Amino acid sequence: MSLGFSCVIDGPFESAVERVREALAAEGFGIVSEIDVQATLRKKLDVDFRPYLILGACNPGLAKKAIEADPEIGLLLPCNVTVEEVEGGFKVTAVNPDAMLAAAPANEAILEVAADARPRLERAIAALSG
Amino acid sequence: MSLGFSCVIDGPFESAVERVREALAAEGFGIVSEIDVQATLRKKLDVDFRPYLILGACNPGLAKKAIEADPEIGLLLPCNVTVEEVEGGFKVTAVNPDAMLAAAPANEAILEVAADARPRLERAIAALSG
Repeated sequence: MSLGFSCVIDGPFESAVERVREALAAEGFGIVSEIDVQATLRKKLDVDFRPYLILGACNPGLAKKAIEADPEIGLLLPCNVTVEEVEGGFKVTAVNPDAMLAAAPANEAILEVAADARPRLERAIAALSG
Repeated sequence: MSLGFSCVIDGPFESAVERVREALAAEGFGIVSEIDVQATLRKKLDVDFRPYLILGACNPGLAKKAIEADPEIGLLLPCNVTVEEVEGGFKVTAVNPDAMLAAAPANEAILEVAADARPRLERAIAALSG
């Protein structure tokens, strides 16, 4: 099973990230965290790294359902979406919630949440690449 | 395999969160993201939820090594640490990096990073509960 769904889109970087936000919003996901790996590694280790962003995408209704079903599931939330510079553009990868559940002892409600989230993230990536 | 390592500590909530930050810092982890689930659910869904925080803990050296070994590993970063109100205090749970790797096709370098990160997170939880 693939860890995520991905596509490559055009830059510039800021414009690519904005389109990723819009595609996720269209599927009911807001961005609740944003980690600039390039800036973090520059600040903490004084090294150069390519543009690489980790966005935390959250559908509030699904998150609530998941945490109520299993309080430990917060360890696997939010759904990460990475945007990184690659040859020829920017690679966008959304995590596959089903793959994440390989790490968790899943119950029926959690499987339902993953089954709801997965096609949304797949559609967001498809919309970006279309 | 357990999805995480946990303990229950005294409040109040803000003080508990501060001690969690300190315990993680002592093991080389900074907090790079912070998701207030209670506030998010109140704002987005207008529902009450118990205090529940998702902290993203990152050791920059380990994160760099992991992403260089497998660019997709950002989908599993940072290491989440949850702090939630429970009966009698606040439950702190740090993800077990080995358990997360059940979701990823792990290579040797990634396994090394997990083997370095796991005991750090275990020690942070032990220090909090001690």
